[in-house]
Amino acid sequence: MQKSSLERLQDIKEEVLSKIKPTGSEKAKLKKITDHLISKVNKAIEKQGISGLSVQLVGSASRNTWISGTHDLDIFIIFPEETERIELERAGLSIAREVAKEAERFEERYAEHPYINMNIEEFDVDLVPCFGVTDASCIKSSVDRTPFHNEFVKKHINGLADEVRLLKQFMRGTGVYGSELKTQGFSGYLTELLIIHFGSFENVIFSAVDWKPGLKIKFDSDPLSDSFKGRKDPLIVIDPTDPDRNVAAAVSINKFCEFVDAAREFLTDPSERYFFPEDIVTLTDKDLKDRMRSRGTDLIVICFKKPDEVEDVIYPQLYKMEKSVSDLLEQYQFRVMRSFSWAGENEKEAKAIVYFELISSRLPQIKKHIGPPVWLRDHAEKFKLKYKHMDDVFSFYIEDGKYVCDIPRKYTSATSLLKSRLNTCSLGKHISASVNEGFQILENKEICAIKYCDFRKLFNRYI
Amino acid sequence: MQKSSLERLQDIKEEVLSKIKPTGSEKAKLKKITDHLISKVNKAIEKQGISGLSVQLVGSASRNTWISGTHDLDIFIIFPEETERIELERAGLSIAREVAKEAERFEERYAEHPYINMNIEEFDVDLVPCFGVTDASCIKSSVDRTPFHNEFVKKHINGLADEVRLLKQFMRGTGVYGSELKTQGFSGYLTELLIIHFGSFENVIFSAVDWKPGLKIKFDSDPLSDSFKGRKDPLIVIDPTDPDRNVAAAVSINKFCEFVDAAREFLTDPSERYFFPEDIVTLTDKDLKDRMRSRGTDLIVICFKKPDEVEDVIYPQLYKMEKSVSDLLEQYQFRVMRSFSWAGENEKEAKAIVYFELISSRLPQIKKHIGPPVWLRDHAEKFKLKYKHMDDVFSFYIEDGKYVCDIPRKYTSATSLLKSRLNTCSLGKHISASVNEGFQILENKEICAIKYCDFRKLFNRYI
Repeated sequence: MQKSSLERLQDIKEEVLSKIKPTGSEKAKLKKITDHLISKVNKAIEKQGISGLSVQLVGSASRNTWISGTHDLDIFIIFPEETERIELERAGLSIAREVAKEAERFEERYAEHPYINMNIEEFDVDLVPCFGVTDASCIKSSVDRTPFHNEFVKKHINGLADEVRLLKQFMRGTGVYGSELKTQGFSGYLTELLIIHFGSFENVIFSAVDWKPGLKIKFDSDPLSDSFKGRKDPLIVIDPTDPDRNVAAAVSINKFCEFVDAAREFLTDPSERYFFPEDIVTLTDKDLKDRMRSRGTDLIVICFKKPDEVEDVIYPQLYKMEKSVSDLLEQYQFRVMRSFSWAGENEKEAKAIVYFELISSRLPQIKKHIGPPVWLRDHAEKFKLKYKHMDDVFSFYIEDGKYVCDIPRKYTSATSLLKSRLNTCSLGKHISASVNEGFQILENKEICAIKYCDFRKLFNRYI
Repeated sequence: MQKSSLERLQDIKEEVLSKIKPTGSEKAKLKKITDHLISKVNKAIEKQGISGLSVQLVGSASRNTWISGTHDLDIFIIFPEETERIELERAGLSIAREVAKEAERFEERYAEHPYINMNIEEFDVDLVPCFGVTDASCIKSSVDRTPFHNEFVKKHINGLADEVRLLKQFMRGTGVYGSELKTQGFSGYLTELLIIHFGSFENVIFSAVDWKPGLKIKFDSDPLSDSFKGRKDPLIVIDPTDPDRNVAAAVSINKFCEFVDAAREFLTDPSERYFFPEDIVTLTDKDLKDRMRSRGTDLIVICFKKPDEVEDVIYPQLYKMEKSVSDLLEQYQFRVMRSFSWAGENEKEAKAIVYFELISSRLPQIKKHIGPPVWLRDHAEKFKLKYKHMDDVFSFYIEDGKYVCDIPRKYTSATSLLKSRLNTCSLGKHISASVNEGFQILENKEICAIKYCDFRKLFNRYI
């Protein structure tokens, strides 16, 4: 990079930081609410009369790597390692409920064990009970790792917090941030480790342009744990607090490549737009119809009630359905060009949608059915007996030494195929239940009946 | 087979023979014309003043394996082995022309060397000069083999002539008779050898039901000649007069399988219809349109002037064109279900036609173009540079770790593809010349414009 480009990069970093770095008053407010909550938790512990517990703020708020405008607090209630799981769940919830009493709203959520999510003064707070184990490799519950991550980052981040913020914002802007199962991208902890490893935002970017799947990043010189043998993760970042864990396990090959691609684009023409992309246009009905006409393909969506579950439950099932329905379509010779899945977020009676673009949603009445070679007598005679004189067989002949017949195609339209056979697809438990209650198939212009903004924005990327 | 079936088989054989075995007067007529022609040839030889020549009737007429109603005579003018080729051609033609003077019509034809074909009293006569070599393995011209075939068959046919007639007629009736390049089936000599080897018509049929490609039939116990190493002929019948030659070399895998299939069908339900099939119906325009509608596929024919060459020249070129155009269509994503080639026979200004049945002759405007994996930086960047900002690219995205773009499809109809790119197909010399003079593309109902009976009969087997 020439000096002028480097200077431009510095200008962009400063400009971006001025927008994403929390102000003094924002920090003060966060500190005040954190102190208040921790003191409330301690009081609740006291009230319960349990000894040996401690309270800790973890996550980006505690590591000072949070981005202005985000108000997420993770407060961990740490129980002695020897506590029975059932006692941790009971006492942990009891303490958290006591604290949540003053919240504007709260709800109990369930991951590996229950915790409470609450809102207070614009803050989104998780109150999470965990076991205070002595080493991250002997955790009893996956949240037990977090205090170790906290400790490692705080120890090594040494003045690089802003670099983490820049990388997070860049990943957000380019759509690769977030390790939830919907996104399959980069987690906050992963961005922190990348900054600690490479030393700065631009060093991560400089490196990423040449990344190849199978890249391994480690914080010590120990050999790779056996648990990584045969694994195909595109990116392996060994957790410095647990050598058996890949911090980047969630990163899909596409998000990995999208980051590499974004890094290259950014270096070619550095710009703030990678951090703050323009909002995607919501397509109007006319836009949609114009685009359909100009592509000439056939579009099909399956639309059904979104199961009442969190995204981490719904999206893997949606992706599974997308794959399974694609396979069904291809099996019946409808060629799929592209597909995506979407679930509504906040609406009452929200919908889930799986979308397919097909070369054509219609096929001719006949289908070529290729049988065994004529010289495999047993097979050949069985095939011939079955098909040759079937009423609705169009023709029976020999081609390349094999019996072949033209038989009626069972499904000449993708819609009729889906209506009849969607229930044979491998669908996840919740989606299956929802689809069984009913689903709609919309084709081409009918898709304009779907008005959700979010859906149309996503659709915009596919049409 | 149960006795009653065997009896039925014998009845059928007798019934068929009564129709195909030449009558006494037919035989007498053939003998009379043969004697007459041989004496004319001898006189012509005398007139030319050349010594050491002999004349011989060869082929099925001389072996008594000909079928009633066929009137083909092959008369060979045998020159001494040491004759110069140029002298054989000159003198041979000169003798033949002298004989042909009294013919109703005659023409000079060219195989490896020139010969004369003539018509006289309903007989189709070939007058062929050849070299009288001492052994079939040291022939100077491929026709030199025929006298050896003649000798072998006459020596071994011992009362099996009728069996040969039956097998020939069965092969005719089931469409596998004829070793010309159009048919790629069984030659007359091959049927004679099969009868000599297996002993009877029914023994060939009993055997054929279990034939597998790679079958070898030999008339001695010598090991197979090295010249057969690595060859993939479905049927190998070693010429008893030349161990390096496969008499069945012309038999295609499909004709081989069709014979096996016909043998099995015949044994399941013996009937004269295998020897004398019903004439194929000529489809009317209405039949054609009905069948097109019920199949729902798209039909395309390419129609052009038939080159003025013999079928053995035209058909290999037609088949080559059929394959080459199929590949072109598939390359541009038009899926070919079936195809065939046809050339008119006797018409003035005869046409040649190549036919394709497609899943669809239309494709959408866009085409998915898959590029290199993102991590192959050089390739990936070149691909992106070329496509990302191209004016008419619809979308550019990452899928399965690769760059992909939706680009405009160059040919959205099979007809436009063929009009533009037919000249890039690998066509034979004569067909290429003819196509360059002009061709027509007809689609679906337009094909009804082709009225030739022969074409429509063939078409009937494909629609």
